[in-house]
Amino acid sequence: MEKGSIQRWRFQGNKELASASSISTTIQGVLSSLKQNLNQNDTRPAIPLGKGDPSAFPSFQTTSVAEDAIVDAVRSSMYNSYAPTVGILPARRAIADYLNRDLPYKLTPDDVYLTPGCTQAIKIILTVLTRPGANILLPRPGFPFFEACTARNHVEIRHFDLLPEKGWEVDLDAVEALADENTVAVVLINPGNPCGNVFTYQHLHKIAETARKLGIMVIADEEYQHLTFGSNPSVPMGVFGSIVPVVTLGSISKRWMVPGWRIGWLVTSDPDGILQKSGIVDSIKDCLNFSSDPATFIQGAIPQILEKTKEDFFSKTNSLLREAANICYDTIKEIPCLACPYKPEAAMFVMVRASSFLSSLLEKMNVYIYDIFTNFCSRSSWNYRCWKALTMTWNSLLSWLKRNQLLYYQE
Amino acid sequence: MEKGSIQRWRFQGNKELASASSISTTIQGVLSSLKQNLNQNDTRPAIPLGKGDPSAFPSFQTTSVAEDAIVDAVRSSMYNSYAPTVGILPARRAIADYLNRDLPYKLTPDDVYLTPGCTQAIKIILTVLTRPGANILLPRPGFPFFEACTARNHVEIRHFDLLPEKGWEVDLDAVEALADENTVAVVLINPGNPCGNVFTYQHLHKIAETARKLGIMVIADEEYQHLTFGSNPSVPMGVFGSIVPVVTLGSISKRWMVPGWRIGWLVTSDPDGILQKSGIVDSIKDCLNFSSDPATFIQGAIPQILEKTKEDFFSKTNSLLREAANICYDTIKEIPCLACPYKPEAAMFVMVRASSFLSSLLEKMNVYIYDIFTNFCSRSSWNYRCWKALTMTWNSLLSWLKRNQLLYYQE
Repeated sequence: MEKGSIQRWRFQGNKELASASSISTTIQGVLSSLKQNLNQNDTRPAIPLGKGDPSAFPSFQTTSVAEDAIVDAVRSSMYNSYAPTVGILPARRAIADYLNRDLPYKLTPDDVYLTPGCTQAIKIILTVLTRPGANILLPRPGFPFFEACTARNHVEIRHFDLLPEKGWEVDLDAVEALADENTVAVVLINPGNPCGNVFTYQHLHKIAETARKLGIMVIADEEYQHLTFGSNPSVPMGVFGSIVPVVTLGSISKRWMVPGWRIGWLVTSDPDGILQKSGIVDSIKDCLNFSSDPATFIQGAIPQILEKTKEDFFSKTNSLLREAANICYDTIKEIPCLACPYKPEAAMFVMVRASSFLSSLLEKMNVYIYDIFTNFCSRSSWNYRCWKALTMTWNSLLSWLKRNQLLYYQE
Repeated sequence: MEKGSIQRWRFQGNKELASASSISTTIQGVLSSLKQNLNQNDTRPAIPLGKGDPSAFPSFQTTSVAEDAIVDAVRSSMYNSYAPTVGILPARRAIADYLNRDLPYKLTPDDVYLTPGCTQAIKIILTVLTRPGANILLPRPGFPFFEACTARNHVEIRHFDLLPEKGWEVDLDAVEALADENTVAVVLINPGNPCGNVFTYQHLHKIAETARKLGIMVIADEEYQHLTFGSNPSVPMGVFGSIVPVVTLGSISKRWMVPGWRIGWLVTSDPDGILQKSGIVDSIKDCLNFSSDPATFIQGAIPQILEKTKEDFFSKTNSLLREAANICYDTIKEIPCLACPYKPEAAMFVMVRASSFLSSLLEKMNVYIYDIFTNFCSRSSWNYRCWKALTMTWNSLLSWLKRNQLLYYQE
């Protein structure tokens, strides 16, 4: 640097990161930024436009069985060390046993990889599948973290629609039409996020046959597995592992109401060893060497959590969700500018069609809601993110609208 | 697929990941693979060739203060939800306060970002600095996760030497000679991993001036901060934040002996706001939107852990480390084919120069040790990774060598 000159710095932010981040990881990002920008002097309650986070609501609290398991693991002093990158064996075994209850064959602990929550499992499998020119088939509506990760890895995104008139089933004709020789995987989210649907056994079977025909793997995001309260039982995609290799992603976050505990799994349902032969398994292990692990003592607690939790905890949760979904669905029907094409029977969300009038109305309401709604919804008649405000927070939102005399306007 | 044809699958593993992984993340990767391949029927004890993981040894156990803090956080049921991507405010504030004890100015909670351990903080800052053509200056010997992440991001690595004859100080002439207009950062590891040294205030000041002259930021890996037991006090690089922007990486892993708890931090020491203006701060936030968070209840425990741990816990640890380092150093001197250029005064490692004879001897010993040693050491007369076996496990290794009558050979 010359004397008297202005100091120049040679580093700068990674612009590519900013553009990938702006696509949509942004449920997380926007919420964080909103939370940080809340006016602390404003005494009005902020409506929690959560992230499918049941634990934010007093009715949805975890079981003492899970808390006890954590306390026991910490007190044992056995789990303070680094864990193997794939996860500790007792946790892998417990997860295999847990998933095996619903499978026609047996997973082994070697099929199970521990990750810090389901989102990191998504990140890992999408990184593993990255290669120049590759494309991946993603559902629309879907969970935008898939889009963000795919874009970040420079893999092409091809969207197929879920069909509301068919209970949000996959448009299989579209899947076949979209796929080509560079397609590597199709993503399913079942039970549906954000559609609240559950695919039937027959529909999953058809998806498996289609994927086999196309030579692509199925990535099954089963984060909401067992959180069902309608007539369709939830069938894991792994059931069809002998038709097509399946990578299943899941966690204890939603079923145990502890998304902040950051523990999930990536599981290969692949009785014919195709993922091994094609190098996917080795690549998963390579990727785990770079990735963060769940805290070791939380891994240590997993066997106790999975084995000791009583069935009545789960059935109580599902009853509560059914009740909330019914209130939500019935209330939406009463509002002139909203429509709901499908009564949810799983997960924590309901898809709502908002009129253009409502969108403009919401913009006038409140900067917080405004940000959420316009960022994710205003580009389409389908309010993909409307469910953020319309899940269990629906009642709060209604009261707010009523208090502010914004609800009874006729379009 | 045509009738009767063999099923073809279009996916494959990510080969780039494999090549980046093989560079050296591999301390983690190799150890995992070794652990998984241990013959369960072999009753011989496996020597724990740890990863700077004190908790693997009975003498180094965490304090009940830390365990109590976790138990209190879990039992409170306040920390089951997702955390903001930057970390929860009370934890950020507690970390700022903790680091402020050693700084001439005040960090605010906004300068602190929580990460799942120090390695993820490394990953984040190296991702943030990625741009086409960029290069980063890394110390040799160093912590190979830096090399793995830099390579994975397609950023050029340029190594400068640490000088054993000068107590492992940075070769500042080399730093100046290596840097050009595409250099974005210089990495320091202080206290030294794997050299066990502590940079003086004067040397850090010179590094800061050099980095300023070059227009590059300093990434200070201070994972072993305060784990010192020699004459040099450990000075945080952030002290020089007004000369050059510093990104400090740290965690509770080593000082509290809980590397499996996966909580650390990335801190911007930048009183002049240069990292903000250059887009680095925004880029860190973007990157955190894609990254895994530490478990929320572990974040919730941080204030209690940092504020309540008594000084005698730390001083006992440092005494034990001093004792172990002395035994290690003195014993090495007695072995004909090993030399130790510098008596460690910090961290958990000692750098040992092994003769070519010893390297070949070790190869004959045992497949486990063979793997570790030849992977990391045989390429150089400096056994960069020899410390893996020569830290607190040194006594076990010596006994093993003696039992197997491999120790008393004269070169």
